Amino acid sequence: MATYKAPLEDMRFILNDVFQADRLWASMPATAEVTRDLSDAILDEAGKMVENLLFPLNRDGDEEGCHFDNGQVTTPKGFKEAFKTYAENGWTAFSGNPEFGGQGMPKSLAVLFEEMMHSANSSFALYPALTNGATLCLDAHASDELKQAYLPKLYSGEWSGTMCLTEPHSGTDLGIMRTKAVPNDDGSFNISGTKIFITGGEHDMVDNIIHLVLAKLPDAPAGSKGISLFLVPKFLPDADGNPGERNGVAAGSIEHKMGIKGSATCVMNFDDAKGWIIGEPNQGLAAMFTMMNYERLSIGIQGLGLGEVSYQSAADYARERLQGRAATGVQNEGGNADPIIVHGDVRRMLLTMRALNEGGRALSTYVGMELDKAKFSENDAEQKAAQDRVALLTPIAKAFFTDRGFDTTVIGQQVFGGHGYVREWGMEQFVRDCRISQIYEGTNGIQALDLAGRKVTRNGGKYVDAFLADVRGWIDDNANEQGLDSIRERLVAAVDLLESTTAELLRQAGDDPDMVNASAVEYLDLFGYVTYAWLWARMMVTAAQRDDDFGRAKLTVGRFYFERLLPRAGALAEQIKAGPATLMSLDQDLF
Amino acid sequence: MATYKAPLEDMRFILNDVFQADRLWASMPATAEVTRDLSDAILDEAGKMVENLLFPLNRDGDEEGCHFDNGQVTTPKGFKEAFKTYAENGWTAFSGNPEFGGQGMPKSLAVLFEEMMHSANSSFALYPALTNGATLCLDAHASDELKQAYLPKLYSGEWSGTMCLTEPHSGTDLGIMRTKAVPNDDGSFNISGTKIFITGGEHDMVDNIIHLVLAKLPDAPAGSKGISLFLVPKFLPDADGNPGERNGVAAGSIEHKMGIKGSATCVMNFDDAKGWIIGEPNQGLAAMFTMMNYERLSIGIQGLGLGEVSYQSAADYARERLQGRAATGVQNEGGNADPIIVHGDVRRMLLTMRALNEGGRALSTYVGMELDKAKFSENDAEQKAAQDRVALLTPIAKAFFTDRGFDTTVIGQQVFGGHGYVREWGMEQFVRDCRISQIYEGTNGIQALDLAGRKVTRNGGKYVDAFLADVRGWIDDNANEQGLDSIRERLVAAVDLLESTTAELLRQAGDDPDMVNASAVEYLDLFGYVTYAWLWARMMVTAAQRDDDFGRAKLTVGRFYFERLLPRAGALAEQIKAGPATLMSLDQDLF
Repeated sequence: MATYKAPLEDMRFILNDVFQADRLWASMPATAEVTRDLSDAILDEAGKMVENLLFPLNRDGDEEGCHFDNGQVTTPKGFKEAFKTYAENGWTAFSGNPEFGGQGMPKSLAVLFEEMMHSANSSFALYPALTNGATLCLDAHASDELKQAYLPKLYSGEWSGTMCLTEPHSGTDLGIMRTKAVPNDDGSFNISGTKIFITGGEHDMVDNIIHLVLAKLPDAPAGSKGISLFLVPKFLPDADGNPGERNGVAAGSIEHKMGIKGSATCVMNFDDAKGWIIGEPNQGLAAMFTMMNYERLSIGIQGLGLGEVSYQSAADYARERLQGRAATGVQNEGGNADPIIVHGDVRRMLLTMRALNEGGRALSTYVGMELDKAKFSENDAEQKAAQDRVALLTPIAKAFFTDRGFDTTVIGQQVFGGHGYVREWGMEQFVRDCRISQIYEGTNGIQALDLAGRKVTRNGGKYVDAFLADVRGWIDDNANEQGLDSIRERLVAAVDLLESTTAELLRQAGDDPDMVNASAVEYLDLFGYVTYAWLWARMMVTAAQRDDDFGRAKLTVGRFYFERLLPRAGALAEQIKAGPATLMSLDQDLF
Repeated sequence: MATYKAPLEDMRFILNDVFQADRLWASMPATAEVTRDLSDAILDEAGKMVENLLFPLNRDGDEEGCHFDNGQVTTPKGFKEAFKTYAENGWTAFSGNPEFGGQGMPKSLAVLFEEMMHSANSSFALYPALTNGATLCLDAHASDELKQAYLPKLYSGEWSGTMCLTEPHSGTDLGIMRTKAVPNDDGSFNISGTKIFITGGEHDMVDNIIHLVLAKLPDAPAGSKGISLFLVPKFLPDADGNPGERNGVAAGSIEHKMGIKGSATCVMNFDDAKGWIIGEPNQGLAAMFTMMNYERLSIGIQGLGLGEVSYQSAADYARERLQGRAATGVQNEGGNADPIIVHGDVRRMLLTMRALNEGGRALSTYVGMELDKAKFSENDAEQKAAQDRVALLTPIAKAFFTDRGFDTTVIGQQVFGGHGYVREWGMEQFVRDCRISQIYEGTNGIQALDLAGRKVTRNGGKYVDAFLADVRGWIDDNANEQGLDSIRERLVAAVDLLESTTAELLRQAGDDPDMVNASAVEYLDLFGYVTYAWLWARMMVTAAQRDDDFGRAKLTVGRFYFERLLPRAGALAEQIKAGPATLMSLDQDLF
């Protein structure tokens, strides 16, 4: 069966020992109160909460799924009560703005909390995740009046939030959306249209649901420059700020999906629903995107979290399942077979999972810290450099976490053999739940295009140059550190490869407009593997200072990463260099 | 929505033009009557049958699944009637021994038929596939009396067959199984024990179910050398050969699985069930394995078939779905967006799928022909060489078809974006259905171990040497052919890489008993990519002789394979060379 314990030791190692996040927090007024003791205590409590409250609901939630009946959505048994406890204990306020009742925890701590949530119960985790997204957007762009009316209720968990972007014919291409917003005399708008794939669009865990809706004003320019953002509550707040009159928005149905079955994915029909604009007219996409870096990282973490629970379950199973004998002779004298963890291939599977999970955890923490600097730093140069790092690394984190997370859940299922295919064992659910993370919040192909296009070629590789300087600077500073010796050469070669391949991408993109789109996914993968190599090197240098099992295991997993996973970067570079000519040459009727 | 048409043009191109299978058939008495006209007509009819009879049942069959009630299993609506039609039209007899009512069609034709079956309805396809496996085993090893009594009913589709190997504690490691067989005075045996994961163990489509069961005799030696094989019918045949008295075997439950939900996966309880031995006592595994090469190829083809239907559906969707604009400017002047097939990344996805599907189809046909030679050739040298090729390539085909097939179904789902995650669109079912093919019939890790251990290191690379000689011989013979020019250098480099990596595997395996198990999966993948490169080269040489769209498309897809997929071989070789030391060094408690 699937098993999960919050990986607190590794989380603390990364947060405290590798990155010394508390030093960063202390340096910025907004986070100065977050000490190492506090963050350790919070991780402890979060671990207990997800293990005891959310993980036990995961398997049954998948089997039962959500129910739709005449516009009402019922979440799986136990979800509603668990959400009440979750909210009462303050978790819904975790990273909210303290001015409106949030706890103001830094993103570098939130990413570890979010990872635990997705490990324990990905369907459940999505309800607060979407609310977080909505509050971030409101906090950044809404009027003070809207913030006062909505943020406290959202932070308290009494209400929840959604993001309404997609329409049946308009997904990646939001410019062609049809939902309309007609202004009223009182400054409000009437919103009409149909939105699909709305996570938490309707459910039974809160008193009110606040939709952030993209729509077009009557005089809006065509395309993505004509999109505005609106707040549309399910119930209009009454004079006391409590849910009052029902608004013209309702769920038309829920989707029957491959996974995340406990998460209600709704078709939402808006019929002259009353809403208020957030930010400026026709600037809706920009408003949405200011919070996208936060949300994309969090959705990436869904892949990480599911990879972790799959790894832990597979490692436990591999220690217990007796089958065959070790290549070097009998290991389990008393039994009729050895535990399958003696077999090289099982170890290859487990170490692949673990190297990807821990590399990912390091990157999520690193990007979390850069997001904290980008938001809270009072040093302009530090803030700007952090913003650039976030812009570059966010699409990588989202796509690479989820692609490698999916691979990881598939490997974990494989460790269980036939039992992995049977629902009651729980391993196949992780595969199904993880699969969506590669698709939503911008498909991973779109993430790759954002990276290779907007973040690399359109600025002539400026962000990449800064990133390479970060990595080379770190290598120089740590040239004589134990832990780096065995892998230094491979790391330098990987960094060189990223540099030369970026130059090749820029060169070919100058000649052929199809180059970026045709190479983007391979380029993002290459970037991901090289970034993990750097972060593994950082972990190895820190681990080499310890004389304990944890440190020795870390060094072994790190060496495995360099020997058995990093070589993939070489193949990716070769594929990118091939260019777009062949794949663009086939007539579309011949596919 | 998912769409499927049997890919007859490509099948005929491979079978007739690339491999000229009809020349082989004509050269052997057992297959001499199979002409090109006949095989073309059979493929036509098979295509119509799967498109009209089986594909329409696929989606609903997944939603409904199988039902279990008090020992009875009901298949999804329509399956029973479809199976009746299927059997009446002779498809159950396709490759059966003509002496007992089979049609004696060669395996090289059967592989294409099997691919269509799995494209159209993988759950349905498994019922006749298991029966095929049982009849092959009976035909090769059972007494004439058993053959006479059972083969005609199995070929006619009145009865079906199963393979009962796995027990709850005994999967890969069959040596520790507990099912017992106690001899009776009349030469029969009483079988008792529990078998799990039995495909088609109980269902409602036939009058009788014939189980082939592995069990241990009372005096059997320990381990895999003490396993015997028994035939155990659900109903004991009466004096007329019709189903008579109920035997002591019954389904205890069915599994609730990730996919192939229309296929009944049963727990089978044997309680003093009457059975008859097949072959010699304690030689049951050997008997089972003589038909494994046939069955493993067929199960591999499940991956191919699902990859093909996923590709076709994704290509259709990509031509229809309008979203965004081409990098080179507007392509669809009248519409508000271009079809997504204009985007380089969508083409990369589609061409990856197609290059893997068509490479796989070529390999399945190639191995099918070698199986035909191995079974029917009257030339001893040809027969022996074919047996060696089959031994080497079968684990590759099973694992590589299904691993790449799974990748392909995942990519096809990705092309659909969010719609790919919604059940009604059908794309996620292919992913779930395909996933089992990597696990059952020997996990892909076990296939890799069979290749790298038994088929390579244990005979000092003899089979590989012969394979490399085949490939190099072909390259020499075709050195001046058009079609080979653009990829010749890459092909030769790939063959050299396989040779040097095999030498490295042999060298390290001599030093370290863990080398084989720790590198097997990467070695199999490397072998698969190099083998596809050779087969793509063969297809390209043949295609270059045509002056039509089909030929030009083939050449383009082939170039794509060499540019964008074959480079993976280099990374795999590097990973293999790293050796097993790192991954074996971690204490099992530290995972």
